[in-house]
Amino acid sequence: MTAANRQIRLAARPQGAVKPTDWEHATAPAAEPGEGEFAGRTRFLSLDPAMRGWLDDRPSYLPPVGIGEVMRAGSVIEVTASNHPKYEVGDHVVGTFGVQEHVVSDGRGTIKVDPAAAPLSTYLGALGMPGMTAYFGLLEVGALKDGETVVVSGAAGAVGSIVGQIAKVKGCRVVGIAGGAEKCALLTEELGFDAAIDYRSEDVRKALREHCPDGIDVYFDNVGGPILDAALTRLAMHARVVICGAISQYNAESKVEGPSNYLSLLVRRARMEGFVVFDHAARYKEAAAEMAGWIAEGRLKVKEHIVRGTVDDFPGTLQMLFRGENVGKLVLELV
Amino acid sequence: MTAANRQIRLAARPQGAVKPTDWEHATAPAAEPGEGEFAGRTRFLSLDPAMRGWLDDRPSYLPPVGIGEVMRAGSVIEVTASNHPKYEVGDHVVGTFGVQEHVVSDGRGTIKVDPAAAPLSTYLGALGMPGMTAYFGLLEVGALKDGETVVVSGAAGAVGSIVGQIAKVKGCRVVGIAGGAEKCALLTEELGFDAAIDYRSEDVRKALREHCPDGIDVYFDNVGGPILDAALTRLAMHARVVICGAISQYNAESKVEGPSNYLSLLVRRARMEGFVVFDHAARYKEAAAEMAGWIAEGRLKVKEHIVRGTVDDFPGTLQMLFRGENVGKLVLELV
Repeated sequence: MTAANRQIRLAARPQGAVKPTDWEHATAPAAEPGEGEFAGRTRFLSLDPAMRGWLDDRPSYLPPVGIGEVMRAGSVIEVTASNHPKYEVGDHVVGTFGVQEHVVSDGRGTIKVDPAAAPLSTYLGALGMPGMTAYFGLLEVGALKDGETVVVSGAAGAVGSIVGQIAKVKGCRVVGIAGGAEKCALLTEELGFDAAIDYRSEDVRKALREHCPDGIDVYFDNVGGPILDAALTRLAMHARVVICGAISQYNAESKVEGPSNYLSLLVRRARMEGFVVFDHAARYKEAAAEMAGWIAEGRLKVKEHIVRGTVDDFPGTLQMLFRGENVGKLVLELV
Repeated sequence: MTAANRQIRLAARPQGAVKPTDWEHATAPAAEPGEGEFAGRTRFLSLDPAMRGWLDDRPSYLPPVGIGEVMRAGSVIEVTASNHPKYEVGDHVVGTFGVQEHVVSDGRGTIKVDPAAAPLSTYLGALGMPGMTAYFGLLEVGALKDGETVVVSGAAGAVGSIVGQIAKVKGCRVVGIAGGAEKCALLTEELGFDAAIDYRSEDVRKALREHCPDGIDVYFDNVGGPILDAALTRLAMHARVVICGAISQYNAESKVEGPSNYLSLLVRRARMEGFVVFDHAARYKEAAAEMAGWIAEGRLKVKEHIVRGTVDDFPGTLQMLFRGENVGKLVLELV
């Protein structure tokens, strides 16, 4: 009596934007857990800009997803059967289980989470990778000091919305860059940002001049392209530019657009530094505890964009990220 | 009885490469030193890639040279008259005295140098700004560790030739990138570099793959453009990219070419940092003493390219830098 396991597999390496034909919608028999393993049912799937990079066959911080393999994705699953000493039926577990309905795992790289402490989806957002990325990128890589001026792009996204709020906790002046009036209103009216710049309707360079009269101390970049270039023109002395991602460039079919104004790093004695959140894994627990405290105090507001559907909705939902259609963390809840 | 003072002044802001008509060749009466001042005769003029940046009217680490002003330049002068308590006739003094035959100074920002300790021209090179730039850029900004792999571009130039040799003193593997077989031979046969890459005849990316099998720990960039981009593809984990200059871009009439491969900073958890040598002025003396020791021990070979002529030869000599015609520090000796 084996259940069917619906899966999304990579069918072809995308050229530029991902096309529907780059995915294979497949059904496999759901596997039974072996000795020391558990089985589970996927409840929430994480959708992340970084996924685009995982589809390209080039050297990166993780190997590319292979053709024919189940698409890599973080998710929250509910344990349905267990031969694992640490997990019981009914437990909720976060891990990189892939885009599929049913999973089997030996527990490596997984974390048990408490649905009473936070909504399950939040373990994929503020208390998951995006939250950790914001926390360590801003505080460690960006070496944020209290009272500095922080600018973040992709500010209404999963990472950006948290970056700005952590900076506010630290007493900083925070300017967010996002696309559209609605997202900008969210930043200033709900999330406590000092100012928001709508890159779709404003001259970003001019707006940064206005909102950052003393320059930018930390620029947290999620987008790359012309917005990164604009931010480079406004760096304060000894500024830090944190390279977290470059969503504007992930679908580029030709060369990535390099930051033409990079020589301002010299003029402003500034640095630009990249990072990968996994390097900070030893401190996730400590960071998550501090973030959970800020959430409880109402100082960190969790923004999630939950799409309800099936694994077959994964490809279409992923597109929302690259069209800027999500506000906060984008999650697919399997119903 | 006033001597004539031949001067080179900025006549117009250059568009792209500097043209002869961007300079005015003028003659003014040589000034007499006032109270607390000294007068001197220029012996050696420094020619530096950074000079191109000083001609543009845009925010930078120094104000631009004004139209009609004597061109800014470092030089070694010989004191010919003095009302200054610290300088006597016959003393040799380094300062930013400008492109002119005769100077008057109140001594601010000047240093007395000893012609018995080193040739006068060396105070504009290895023991002057280029030497300090190499020293602090590599050791402080680049945070060089013994035994690392260092790549330097513009490796046969004033700064690059010293960067590579300091790295060898520190027990590093050193690869230089330069233009032409002659410069490359100098690097490996005379200056002790482990390998040299001729960017005019070789595929730099491929050559870096071959010469840096474990990646680049410190990349010291003097050139920008495609060579910077190639180096970014070979970074080791936690690499440091030191942005010292971008001579390939200084004459660009359109946008500077940004480094398309900057996202390797993320993949490799690397940083790119700019600096201006003046910030390290408090430690010049200490650095110069250490460099002088290395010179005395034969571990640091001083390469100078001395053109003999008059101040009227300044514009033509400056072009040599942008054509890559100099080997080592380019100096104009007034005869």
